[in-house]
Parts: sequence; structure tokens; C-alpha cells
Amino acid sequence: MNFKEIIVTIRESVWFFWSTLFVIIFYAVVLGLRTIDSIDTPYFEYVIVFLDYFITIFFLLEIVIKLLAEKQFLDFFKSGWNIFDLIIVLITIIPFDSTDYAAVARLFRIFRVLRIITIRPQLKHLINVLLSAIPAIFDILLLLFIVFYIYSVLGSFLFVDVDDALWGNFLTSMLTLFKVLTLEGWSEIMDSVLVKHPWAWVYFVSFIIMASFVLFNLFIAVIISKMQKEHDEEEEKKIDLILLKLSSLEVELKLLKRENK
Amino acid sequence: MNFKEIIVTIRESVWFFWSTLFVIIFYAVVLGLRTIDSIDTPYFEYVIVFLDYFITIFFLLEIVIKLLAEKQFLDFFKSGWNIFDLIIVLITIIPFDSTDYAAVARLFRIFRVLRIITIRPQLKHLINVLLSAIPAIFDILLLLFIVFYIYSVLGSFLFVDVDDALWGNFLTSMLTLFKVLTLEGWSEIMDSVLVKHPWAWVYFVSFIIMASFVLFNLFIAVIISKMQKEHDEEEEKKIDLILLKLSSLEVELKLLKRENK
Amino acid sequence: MNFKEIIVTIRESVWFFWSTLFVIIFYAVVLGLRTIDSIDTPYFEYVIVFLDYFITIFFLLEIVIKLLAEKQFLDFFKSGWNIFDLIIVLITIIPFDSTDYAAVARLFRIFRVLRIITIRPQLKHLINVLLSAIPAIFDILLLLFIVFYIYSVLGSFLFVDVDDALWGNFLTSMLTLFKVLTLEGWSEIMDSVLVKHPWAWVYFVSFIIMASFVLFNLFIAVIISKMQKEHDEEEEKKIDLILLKLSSLEVELKLLKRENK
Amino acid sequence: MNFKEIIVTIRESVWFFWSTLFVIIFYAVVLGLRTIDSIDTPYFEYVIVFLDYFITIFFLLEIVIKLLAEKQFLDFFKSGWNIFDLIIVLITIIPFDSTDYAAVARLFRIFRVLRIITIRPQLKHLINVLLSAIPAIFDILLLLFIVFYIYSVLGSFLFVDVDDALWGNFLTSMLTLFKVLTLEGWSEIMDSVLVKHPWAWVYFVSFIIMASFVLFNLFIAVIISKMQKEHDEEEEKKIDLILLKLSSLEVELKLLKRENK
Repeated sequence: MNFKEIIVTIRESVWFFWSTLFVIIFYAVVLGLRTIDSIDTPYFEYVIVFLDYFITIFFLLEIVIKLLAEKQFLDFFKSGWNIFDLIIVLITIIPFDSTDYAAVARLFRIFRVLRIITIRPQLKHLINVLLSAIPAIFDILLLLFIVFYIYSVLGSFLFVDVDDALWGNFLTSMLTLFKVLTLEGWSEIMDSVLVKHPWAWVYFVSFIIMASFVLFNLFIAVIISKMQKEHDEEEEKKIDLILLKLSSLEVELKLLKRENK
Repeated sequence: MNFKEIIVTIRESVWFFWSTLFVIIFYAVVLGLRTIDSIDTPYFEYVIVFLDYFITIFFLLEIVIKLLAEKQFLDFFKSGWNIFDLIIVLITIIPFDSTDYAAVARLFRIFRVLRIITIRPQLKHLINVLLSAIPAIFDILLLLFIVFYIYSVLGSFLFVDVDDALWGNFLTSMLTLFKVLTLEGWSEIMDSVLVKHPWAWVYFVSFIIMASFVLFNLFIAVIISKMQKEHDEEEEKKIDLILLKLSSLEVELKLLKRENK
Repeated sequence: MNFKEIIVTIRESVWFFWSTLFVIIFYAVVLGLRTIDSIDTPYFEYVIVFLDYFITIFFLLEIVIKLLAEKQFLDFFKSGWNIFDLIIVLITIIPFDSTDYAAVARLFRIFRVLRIITIRPQLKHLINVLLSAIPAIFDILLLLFIVFYIYSVLGSFLFVDVDDALWGNFLTSMLTLFKVLTLEGWSEIMDSVLVKHPWAWVYFVSFIIMASFVLFNLFIAVIISKMQKEHDEEEEKKIDLILLKLSSLEVELKLLKRENK
Repeated sequence: MNFKEIIVTIRESVWFFWSTLFVIIFYAVVLGLRTIDSIDTPYFEYVIVFLDYFITIFFLLEIVIKLLAEKQFLDFFKSGWNIFDLIIVLITIIPFDSTDYAAVARLFRIFRVLRIITIRPQLKHLINVLLSAIPAIFDILLLLFIVFYIYSVLGSFLFVDVDDALWGNFLTSMLTLFKVLTLEGWSEIMDSVLVKHPWAWVYFVSFIIMASFVLFNLFIAVIISKMQKEHDEEEEKKIDLILLKLSSLEVELKLLKRENK
């Protein structure tokens, strides 16, 4: 067993998986506990610093192991998940600590939790399914965006005199319409506009029906279809097999008939 | 290659598609940016005026090209999408600029963004699917409207003494009930009524269960069914084919049997 | 053509359907318009009184015609829809006008709009489908009610010291929890409780997850399943037919084989 | 008929089922009515105390009967539902009445209503279906939790200066984000943050799209798929049967062919 084989064995061993998982979860819990003031003692700081060094080295080592386990160096970059891992590691080893962005850099360490996704194959699969639904959803989102755009430009032209914080320009209008899309507080937003523009209910009711009722539910419908399609594929294959068998049966029968003659 | 052929070639060329798309998106972005005060300089006004003339001529030309590309003049009007395009163009070339409605007319130019729908076939398909769902949804909407109408007339009779702005007449009641349908602030609306009419919770709870829980979800259920039916059609055809093949097999077998005798 | 045949002909004629529909809609519109103060003139009162008499006689006549059109008198009561019609007619002809309940009685006339359901077969079908879903939904509703009951009794024991209007007894608690079920203002309800009972988030979060997330969506899932089952039934019949044909083919083949020997 | 047989007969008799159901419902109604002050008289207290003794003995007897009805003593504990019953009984017979926890102990009696689930097989089935959906939902919940965790740690780092009650530590942040997940009052939460951090809309909009729109709807999609899978299983079995029959037909035909030669 040469060096590469040893590495591959390590990489695929069960204890490597569980120790990685344990380190990530422990690290996440510590990061979470630090936000609780009554727990956050100086002693905690040392634990975090130690864990930080440990996890950085651990993740780096893991990537090196993965790199070495590949037959060809560049194969590593063919998988989107490897690149995803690499970015998470790189983001957190850049030495920001002495700069102004130290706080932000330290914050970014929480994204290391995302490594749980790479470790659990089912989560990878789930995200792949979600990503594969994008082409089917794309046109619904595009239509939703067109509706959003038209309504936000209209809104910022028509209602700018009502409330600058809500309808100041088409970007704030878009945020306001996003609130309306989630139906959160839309009736108050409308009521404030109705005072000056009594006809404005047309604007809001039509937007809610189009964006929130129709397009948003279409979006859900497509996700549900996508989920079921995956399950139905098996059935479809069986039906195709039935068709194939029937065709071969027909041929058999014709041959039999010819022989009989 | 005669004149008509040249026009058809232009109409179906890739660069014609992309340039149309680019012009529309550029125009939409400019219209949007104008709503941001810090960006909206006089210089911008010139760009808009120029773009306005350009896009009006561009769209007119496009329609003329389409009209000429048809074998028969009236075929143009057979497609709903062509009429849709024509209306968008006409709305924005009517010379309102010197009248009182100049501001409104200028506003309507944002609807030109809707031309993206005509350009992208997938969006046309999506809207056609939505429109084809209307017959299936129609009765749910009718039932929803009947429930709405009865509750709004009841509400404007019973609760007019509570708040005139909410229950003044059956039209304001309908808007109030639309708020209740979206579940936005319904508990505050009910609480204001409960003070005078302690039994009013029956009115609200029954309306929410009927309109918001049952009918609204039925509406979603039908949209989802519609989406899946499209996908299932293929499977249905295969099952029909299986049935056909089996029937022919039966006939074959009977013939074989008769020959054997 | 005797008297009964004439009546049946009237009953099933197209103009009878359209005139009934027109009368109902006209009546509904008038009832609605009366709630608008600026329109409600004394002149309107006369129209309503006239329409009232007209529609009462019209509906009565319609029921008499239907009764006579039946072969046997009691067959009329076998259809739930006939009884539904009869109740709507009876409710509005009882002479409440001189009593204290005159206003309520007059209000009940709006329920005549429900007659549109009896007139349109598709609406009858829709309601039948909804009613047929009840057995499948019953247990979900029962479970939802058990969860509601336990939480409302718990709530009225634990939080009665916070706000008597929300948690006074198990009935007001149920209304409060219905608000929480619709997710309307639940965070304010919780925040008001959290002041005295810091652990109360367990109560609210667990209720929302169980009632609003799981059971409510299960309810939707069953409605959607029900809608699709109806469509799938056709496919199921075809698959059954395939199975039948295959079995007969097997028998045929066996017979053929025996003959061959 | 020996002793055991008598017990089994009692256990499975219809009147035993109905009397158990009646006792539970009556008890639940009494517990509910006690929360209404105007009804809660000292007389009521006696009824409760009597019912309490009665129902405790009744439930204990029921469990003893069930235990004796088993062929082997330990078989009783093989069913999760039996253990569920046992816990409900035990929780309420522990003599807390003289201790500080008397009020809480008395409160726990409401959980006896849950016994309705054990009595009605359809409810058991419904809960089993729900439990069987957990493996399919698990990864969605895990992903949802990861998103929750990252956003809550981020939120408690970034927005702690805005409102300590909302973003004090990662646990309060999680509760705040749960509010945002249900879309209840999220726009007010965001508006309070936007004052200090104008870019914070990215945080909220991205969380709502990921958690509330995508993952939450995926959760619903899986439940709906699960519900339909159960119904589809029958169809799948039929398709498998068709495949089997076709294969046997092929074999038959080949045999026939060989014989013919």
C-alpha cells in the first residue's frame, strides 16, 4: 500500500467522516455560545483561538488529502463541491486579523458550518435537485421580475409623494413590493397610499393576485412537480419496458405464424 | 431573394432577437434609474427622449416587418400576441405629451418591458399554460366571488356602525375581506368588530375557513394538477399504445389459433 | 303534450336557466348597491320591495314547477340540492317584517345568491368534490382539534394572568390559537406572554410547527391528492384493462399450446 | 371461556371502545369548562375530583386488561402506542398533589385527551404516515437548521446594537428568525435594523427566499409527495404485475415455438 492508497483509505474511512463532522459541529456550537454574554468569558477566547488554528489546519489538510487522492491534479476542480470547499477554507485563512475588516473576517468563520453539506451526500443530492429545478423555474422568476419591475417603476412614479421611505426610487419600491409579495403589512402600506390616491387599491390588489397568488404558487407547483418527477421516473421506465416487451412479443408471434404456414 | 424573403430573414435572425432584447432591457434600466433622484440629471432627460424616439420607431418598424412577413395581411391579427404587441406600441405613440395626461402617458412607457414576453417563446408558453388553466379555475373563482359577495353585503349591513372606512359599503367591505383573505391584519379587523358584536368571530372564522383555507387552496390544487397533467400526458399516450398493441396481439393469436385448426 | 310535459320543457329550457340567472344577479347587484349611501335613495326602496315580491314568487313558482316535474312527489326531497333550494326560499318568505328580527330577516335575503350554485352544474360538482374530500380530511381535522383543545386549555391555565381578553377561558384561547394558526400577529401575542413566562416560546413554536406547518399542510396535501385522484382514475381503469387483456392472452396461449400437442 | 379470553373479549368489544371514548371526551369537556370563571363553581371541583379518580382507575384497569390480554408480558412494550398510553397514565397518577408542582401536575391531566389517538385506528395510521415522512424530510430540516444557525449567529453579531431583545444572542436571534420564517412582522423587524444598517435588506431578503420560499415549500412538496406515493403504490404493484405477466407470456411463446419445430 503506497502513500496515495493510504490517503484514499483515510479519506473514505468512517472515523474520518465522523471526526470531521464532530469538529465542525463543536466549532459551530462554540461560535454560537460566544454570542451569549453570560457565557462569553476570556477563557472562551482561548478555546476559540485554539479551535480556529486547529480547524484551519484540519480543513487545509483535508483539502490536501483530497487533492492528493485524485488521480490527476486538475480533476479536483471538476467537482463544484470541491471548489465550494476550497472557497470556504480560503475565506477563513486570509490573515485579516490585523486589519480593519478583522471583525467581518472573524464573522465569516461561521460559514465553515456549510461544510456539513459537503460531508453528507444526501444534502449534496438535495441541493443538486434544487439546482436542477432552476431551468424549470427560470421563466416564472423572469415573469415575476418583469411584474416586479413594472410595478416598482410605476409605484415610485405614482406614490413618491406619499412616503419617500417606501416609494423613494424603484429600488426602495422593489423592497416595498417584496413586503407586499410576502403579504406582510401590505394592508397598512396600501392604507397609507389610499389616503392620497383612492384608486390605488387596483395597484395593490392586481399585484397581489398576479405576483403573490398566481406566480408564487406556480413557483411552488413547479417545485412539487420536480420532486414528483424524480419519483415517477422509475414508473416511466417500467412502462417503457412493457412497451418493449410487447413489441418483441409481436415479432415472436409473427415469426411463429410464418413457421406455421 | 425578394423583399419579403429579406424581411422574413431579418425577423428570424438571431441578432434581431438579441438587439430587440437589449434595446428593451436598456430602456427599462434607464426608466428605472430615472426614479433615483441622485442620478436623475438633465443629461438623463435627453437620453430618455432620444431612446423614446428610437424605441418607438424600432417597435413600429418591427411591427411593419412582421406585417409584411405574413403571407396575408389579416393573418397578423389572428395571433393574440401580435395584437398584444400592437396595443403596447399604440399606447405609447399617441401624442399625449402636450395634454393633461402627459405624465400618465409617459408612465405607460414602462409597459414596453412586457415586450420581453413576446420575444421569449418560453414566457409565451408559460402564459398560455396559465390561460389554459382558467376554465378549470373559473368555477372556484365564481364560488369564491359568491362567498365574497355574500360576506361583503352582510358585513356592510352588520358592521357599518363599527368603522365606516372598513365596512362603509359593499365595495369597501370587499377590499376589507380581501385583506382577510390574505390573512393580513385580520385579527385586528376582527378585534375592532368584536367590541360591538361579540359574536362576530363566527363571521370571520367561517370566512377564513371557507375562502382562505378551502377555496384558496383548491385554487392552488388545480394549478398544480394542471402543471402535472401536462407532464402526465406523455405517460397516458404510452398506456394507450400498450392497450393498442395488446389488442392487435389478441387478434394475431386468434388468427393463429384458427389456422392451427 | 300534457301539463307535466309542458312544465318539464319549461324547466329544462335554456331561456328559463338564463332568466333565473339574470334575476338572481340583478337582485344581488341591487342588494349590494343599497349599501352605498350615495346611491340608496327612497326610489331604490321601491325597486327592492318590488324585486323582493317578484323573486319570492319566482323562486316559489320554480320550486312548484320542479315538484310537479318529478314523477313522484317525494323524489323531490331525495336530492340534497332541492332541499338546499327549499331552505333558501323558506328562509326568505317567513313574514318577519313586522317583528324585531325584521332587519336580520331582510339581511338573510342575500343568501338567495347561493341559488347560482344550484343553477350551475359545475358548481354543484365542485361542491360535491369538496364534500367527498371530508372523510379523507376528517382525521386530520380531528387531530388538529385535539391539538387545539389541549393547547387552548393549557393556554387558559398558564397565561390567564397575562391578558384576560386573549386567554380568559378555553374558548377565547381557541380564538387566540386560531389567530396563531393563521400566523397573523402571533409574534405580538407571544411577546406579550414572554414578559411573564420566558419559556412560553416553547408553547408557541411547538404549536405553530404542529398545527400550522404540519397539520395544515397535510390538509392541503389531501385536497391536492383528492383533486388528482379524480384525474388519475381514468388511467387506473386503463391499467386494469391491460391486466385483463394480458390474462385473457395467457389463457389463449395455453389453449393454443394444448391444441398443438 | 377462561379469564384471559373474557378479557380479550372485553378489550375488543364495541361498548368498551365507545365507553372509553365517552369518558375521555366528557373529561376533556369538564376540564375545558373549568377555565370559564362563570361556570367554575365549588360543585364543579367535586365532579373533577370524582372524574379524576374514576378516569385514573379506568385507564389503569384498561392497561392491566391490555397487559393480561397479551400472550407474553413483554409483548405489550413492543408497541410504541402501548408505551405512549402507559406514559400518559403514569404522568397523571404520580402523587404531586401535595407538592409545589401540584398545579403543573393537575395541568398535565389534559394530555389524557391524547388517548383518543390510541383509540381511533385512523389517527394512529395518520401519525404513522407522518412519522414515516421524517426520513424524507430530515435533510430538508437539517439544511433549514444550518441556514437558521448561520443567520442567527450572523444576526447576533451584526445587529446586537439594534435591539437586544431581538438579537441579544444566537438563541433569541433564532426565535426572531423563526418569526421571519413565518413572515409575521418581518418587515417591522427589518425596518428597525435598516435604520443602523442600510444594507441589512440583503440579510432578510436572502433568508426569506432561502428559508421561507425554497426550503419551506420543499418541505411541503415532500409531504405532498409522501401522501401521493401511498396512493400510487397500488398502481405501481399493478404495473409490476403487468411486467411479470408479459415475461411469462414470452417464455410461453418460446416454448410454443420450440415445440412447433
